[in-house]
Amino acid sequence: MTKSGLFLTFEGIDGSGKSSQARMLADRLRDMGHEVVLTREPGGSAGAEEIRRLVLEGDPDRWSAETELLLFTAARRDHLERTIEPALAAGKVVICDRFADSTRMYQGMSRGNLRALVDQLHALMIRREPDLTILIDMDPQTGLARAKGRQGTEERFEDFGLDLQQKMRDGFLALADEFPDRFRVIDGNRDMDSVAQDVTDIVLKAF
Amino acid sequence: MTKSGLFLTFEGIDGSGKSSQARMLADRLRDMGHEVVLTREPGGSAGAEEIRRLVLEGDPDRWSAETELLLFTAARRDHLERTIEPALAAGKVVICDRFADSTRMYQGMSRGNLRALVDQLHALMIRREPDLTILIDMDPQTGLARAKGRQGTEERFEDFGLDLQQKMRDGFLALADEFPDRFRVIDGNRDMDSVAQDVTDIVLKAF
Ligand SMILES: Nc1ncnc2c1ncn2[C@@H]1O[C@H](COP(=O)(O)OP(=O)(O)OP(=O)(O)O)[C@@H](O)[C@H]1O
Ligand SMILES: Nc1ncnc2c1ncn2[C@@H]1O[C@H](COP(=O)(O)OP(=O)(O)OP(=O)(O)O)[C@@H](O)[C@H]1O
Ligand SMILES: [Mg+2]
Ligand SMILES: [Mg+2]
Repeated sequence: MTKSGLFLTFEGIDGSGKSSQARMLADRLRDMGHEVVLTREPGGSAGAEEIRRLVLEGDPDRWSAETELLLFTAARRDHLERTIEPALAAGKVVICDRFADSTRMYQGMSRGNLRALVDQLHALMIRREPDLTILIDMDPQTGLARAKGRQGTEERFEDFGLDLQQKMRDGFLALADEFPDRFRVIDGNRDMDSVAQDVTDIVLKAF
Repeated sequence: MTKSGLFLTFEGIDGSGKSSQARMLADRLRDMGHEVVLTREPGGSAGAEEIRRLVLEGDPDRWSAETELLLFTAARRDHLERTIEPALAAGKVVICDRFADSTRMYQGMSRGNLRALVDQLHALMIRREPDLTILIDMDPQTGLARAKGRQGTEERFEDFGLDLQQKMRDGFLALADEFPDRFRVIDGNRDMDSVAQDVTDIVLKAF
């Protein structure tokens, strides 16, 4: 372990296996003796979780896209200050289930294109980028079927259907093209263990 | 009344009489036949009030100055979109008890100087400035005594004592110098009706 830690994020459409793969990778790295912090967005710190509740519950039109973006940025700032930066400073591996790329993708395309605003707020208040971002790419229909198989009350972002899943996929792939240095795209249309093997190979190379 | 409305804000240290004068002015203008929306910050819309609760309740160290600034900006954006802009568009007079100048003053001096960040976030997400800002200037000791005479659970910003009240006063006066076109400074060390008379005179000139 170096003293500077390693910041890894998972991105991908709903049901692509981000949370499953993040957990499996954390287990694997811990087995290898690494200190790992497994976290997620939105949320990941006490304050950010409270903001998360405010954003995700209730009427979808409750917040404008701009206000929502500010709330997500506040949550991310708290998460970064209280969870991510201290762990990285202590030389730990931080695995985060979604991060700023999800915001770039969602806010940049689903409700008016706010990508420029996302970038300006990020430059002002966040700045930190992952060392490595694993995009689990997959067929939108399969992802949707998997996501619908799970339970959950925070349905806001999952009820837009296949068309949106397709747009999200395209959006993530465009981000991978935009940031080729830190993005690695893997094929998520396979069984969990095969995907996990690719993830481990990529991450071990990054150490 | 013109169709563009008029956006008036009150600023001043704790206990300087902002809320009292805002109410009295609203009554006066309504008596004269104006349509008036009386509102306040932080808060002023349903969403902003929820964010206000999140910011003002609980441990003072709960949020960093930067996260707090993002939350206040989210609340202000919501307040602006849902309350202020629609009223102004309908030609109404909007009277707001504290607005962005309070943020400039508090965040700019009380916990690390974030004034540059305040301005950048404002330029990005808020932009709107009041047509007229009335600064009720007064002796900090008197203001503190008045503020302590009232009840309230949201004590976070009132427990720093006289020294901070003095700094706030200086901070507001500096803002009045910085924005002379829209600021009017009035002497708040007098009885309510005398102050109210000054306020009315200033506002009637602005129509
Ligand atoms: N490779 C896989 N093959 C089959 N099923 C999978 C695979 N990966 C995950 N699943 C299952 O699909 C569902 C969604 O997986 P998971 O929660 O990890 O996805 P996610 O990307 O985190 O979704 P969301 O974006 O909705 O949080 C779960 O029930 C999980 O067990
Ligand atoms: N000119 C005045 N003379 C004497 N008392 C006053 C005067 N103006 C206001 N007060 C009283 O002082 C107290 C504080 O007034 P007010 O709530 O209007 O101030 P404020 O600026 O809104 O304070 P805060 O910043 O704490 O919200 C109230 O009890 C009010 O009745
Ligand atoms: Mg998940
Ligand atoms: Mg008041």
